[in-house]
Amino acid sequence: MAKIKGGVTAPNGFLAAGIHAGIKPAPMLDLALIVSTHPGIMAGTLTQNRIVAPPVILCQRQLKKHMGQAVLVNSGNANALTGAQGMADALEMRKLAATALRLPVGSMFVGSTGVIGRPLPMPAIREAVPPLIRLLGRSGHKPAAQAIMTTDTKSKEVAVQAEIGGRLVTVGGMAKGSGMIHPDMATMLAYLTTDAAIAPQALQVALTRTVNDTFNCISVDGDTSTNDTVLCLANGRAGNPAIQAGTPQWETFYDLLYEACMALSLQICRDAEGATKIVEIIVRGTRTNREAKTIAQTIATSLLVKTAVFGEDPNWGRIAAAAGRASVTFNPSRLSLQFNATRVVDHGQAVGGRAASQAQRIMRKKQYVMTLSVGNHPGHARLWMTDLSYDYVKINASYTT
Amino acid sequence: MAKIKGGVTAPNGFLAAGIHAGIKPAPMLDLALIVSTHPGIMAGTLTQNRIVAPPVILCQRQLKKHMGQAVLVNSGNANALTGAQGMADALEMRKLAATALRLPVGSMFVGSTGVIGRPLPMPAIREAVPPLIRLLGRSGHKPAAQAIMTTDTKSKEVAVQAEIGGRLVTVGGMAKGSGMIHPDMATMLAYLTTDAAIAPQALQVALTRTVNDTFNCISVDGDTSTNDTVLCLANGRAGNPAIQAGTPQWETFYDLLYEACMALSLQICRDAEGATKIVEIIVRGTRTNREAKTIAQTIATSLLVKTAVFGEDPNWGRIAAAAGRASVTFNPSRLSLQFNATRVVDHGQAVGGRAASQAQRIMRKKQYVMTLSVGNHPGHARLWMTDLSYDYVKINASYTT
Repeated sequence: MAKIKGGVTAPNGFLAAGIHAGIKPAPMLDLALIVSTHPGIMAGTLTQNRIVAPPVILCQRQLKKHMGQAVLVNSGNANALTGAQGMADALEMRKLAATALRLPVGSMFVGSTGVIGRPLPMPAIREAVPPLIRLLGRSGHKPAAQAIMTTDTKSKEVAVQAEIGGRLVTVGGMAKGSGMIHPDMATMLAYLTTDAAIAPQALQVALTRTVNDTFNCISVDGDTSTNDTVLCLANGRAGNPAIQAGTPQWETFYDLLYEACMALSLQICRDAEGATKIVEIIVRGTRTNREAKTIAQTIATSLLVKTAVFGEDPNWGRIAAAAGRASVTFNPSRLSLQFNATRVVDHGQAVGGRAASQAQRIMRKKQYVMTLSVGNHPGHARLWMTDLSYDYVKINASYTT
Repeated sequence: MAKIKGGVTAPNGFLAAGIHAGIKPAPMLDLALIVSTHPGIMAGTLTQNRIVAPPVILCQRQLKKHMGQAVLVNSGNANALTGAQGMADALEMRKLAATALRLPVGSMFVGSTGVIGRPLPMPAIREAVPPLIRLLGRSGHKPAAQAIMTTDTKSKEVAVQAEIGGRLVTVGGMAKGSGMIHPDMATMLAYLTTDAAIAPQALQVALTRTVNDTFNCISVDGDTSTNDTVLCLANGRAGNPAIQAGTPQWETFYDLLYEACMALSLQICRDAEGATKIVEIIVRGTRTNREAKTIAQTIATSLLVKTAVFGEDPNWGRIAAAAGRASVTFNPSRLSLQFNATRVVDHGQAVGGRAASQAQRIMRKKQYVMTLSVGNHPGHARLWMTDLSYDYVKINASYTT
C-alpha cells in the first residue's frame, strides 16, 4: 500500500470542483462537486440522530439502490430543521446538478453542513451550479475539499493505492469535521472515491466496518449531528475483477479504505476545534469490548479529563474517577494506568517515586497514549480524544452570530 | 415555612467549627466538625461511582445502623485511591474525633474532598482535632461551611423552619461543590442537620427523594465523584412527635428538606466553576419521565450547547441536535423550543419574525428557562445547567499543580 497525492480525484475516472456560491462570506468556497465519469456503486453510513436533515434523508433513500455517480455538497448552511421547504430545497439542489450533468437524479447525492434552522439560499446555489460544473477537473480535489469546510482550519484529503487482482486500485477521500471534542452539532462529512470494481454489499460492509473503527473512534460517544454522512463511490475503472466480500481481495480493499479513513480521522483530530493534544486511550481487561469502549468514551468525554490534558496536569484521579462512573463493574483494586510506558497507578494506588514527574513530562507532548487496565478479561478498546482549551470555548461560543 | 439564618447550627442542639489544619495552604480552613449535643438518626445518599473513597466506605457501613452524632470533614485531600493506607487514615480520623468527643466511633462520620491519590497528611489532622473541638459553638456554622470548600468561591449555607406537630422544626445545611458543569471529580458534599424527631426510614426516604429532585438535577448526568456524600442528622430536639413516613407531618418535613437542598443546589449552580449563567431546562411530551430526563441531560452536558449559552448565541440547532442524539425516539416534526415565553421552534421548524432577536435578548439574562417539547405524552423533567466559559477551562486545567 502506498500513500499518493490527489484526494478524491486520485482514483481513475473522478473529477471534482469547488466554488464560492455565496452561502459563506466571499471568497470562501462553499459548494463542492465530485463526479465519476462512469456510473458506479455507492455505499454510505449516515447519522444516527433522530433529527435528520433533508439531504441525509435523500441519501438514505438513494443508498437502498447502491447506485451513484456524483455528490454535490454545500457548506455554510446545514439545511436541517428547515421543514418542508428544506426538503424541497434539497430536491431542487439534487435536480439542478443532475440535470446540468445529464445524470438520473437517483445517482446524484447531496449534502449540506453549517448552521441549522435557516433556509438554504437557493438563488446562490442555482447560479453557482453551472460554473461549478465547468470547473470540474482532476485538480479540483483541493477546492472541493476546501468547499466543505466549516470551522475546519485545514482541508482534509487522502489517497492510497494497492494492487488488487493484478490491477492498481486507488482510494481517495476528503473530509470535514472539527472532530472528537464533541461531534455533536459539528457535522462530520467524508467522501471516499475508488476505482475498484466491487460488489455493492462488499463495498457497504467494508465501509461500515471501517467507519466503526475510524471515524466512530474519534467521534467519541457516538454523538451524531443531523447531517453526518460518509459516502463511498466505486466506479470500477481500475479494471480489477469485481471484489466479493470475504475474499483476500476484499481484505486488501478493506485495508485501503481503513488507511484512508484513519488518515482523515487523524487529520480531523489534529484540526479539532481549539485542540492542542491528541491522546490515544486504550482500555483493557473488561469482560467485553463494549465495556472497554464505554469506559474509554466516559474518559474521553469528561470535561475534567479534557481540561487536565490541556493543562498538562497529571491529575490522574480524574481519569480513574471517570472510569469509575462509567456503567461498567470492575474491581478498583485492579486498576492500573499508564502514560505511554510510565505506570502511575498500580493495583488501584498511586505509584510513588518519579512516576508522577515522568507522567507530567509525557503530558507535555502533543500526542501520547493513556492505557487503563481494569482486570484480566479480554475486552479492549481504543479511541482518540483531544483536549479542551480556551480556544474551544472561543470558537464555539459564537458560531452563528 | 421560613428561611432563617444559621446554617447547620440553626436547629436546636447542634454545634459546629472549622479550622485551618494545614491540608490546604494557610490560612484556608480545611477541617470542619458538626456535632449534635444528643445522639441522633443519620440518613445518607452516597456516590454511585465504582471507585469509592475510604471515608465514603465508612459512611456506607455506618448508615446501616441509622445512628449518628457528629461529622468530621476535611478539604484539600479526597483520601481516594489511597489503598490500605487510605482506609487506615479514615479510620484514624474517625477515631481521633470520636475519642476526643467521647462518642462511640459508629456515631462519628467522616468525609474528605480534594485531590485524589495522595495520602492524607495525618500529622496535621491529629494536631488540629483538639483545637477544632474547642472551637465548637453555635456560630461555628460559617467556618465549618468554609472548611469544606475546594474550588468553591463562596461557602454555601441554608436554614429553614416550619411547624410540625405543634413544634417549630428547623433544617440547616451546608454544601460544597462546583456544581453542574460536570460533577465528575468535583465532589459534591452536603450536610443537613435537623432537630426534627423522625423515624429512621422516614428520614432516609425523605432524603433520597429530595436528593433525587435537587442535587441530582444539577449533577446533570448522574456523574458521581469518588467522594460524593449527602448526610442528614436528626437529633429530635424540637420535641415533636416522631414523624412517620407518609403522614402529613412527613410531607411538611419533606418540603423543608427539599427547600434546604434546593437552596444549596442553586448556590452550587451560581458558584459553578467559571459559570456565568444558570439555565433551567424543562423537557415535556415524552412517554416517560425517564425519557425526558435523558433528553434534558443530553442537552445539559452538550459542550456545544454550553458554549452557545456562554456566548449568548441563539444557536438553537445545537439544542435540537442534542435532543436528537439522546437515545429517545420522538417525531422531529413535533419538536418545539422556547426561551422563557418566546417560541423559537414550532413543529420542528424555526419560528420567523422577531423570535430570534427576542431569544437573543433572553439569552443575555443570567438566568432563564429553556422549554423543549417533543410530543403530547405526559413525561417531563426539569434540571439546571450552567454554561461553559473560558474560566471553566482555566480553573480546571491546573487544579493539582
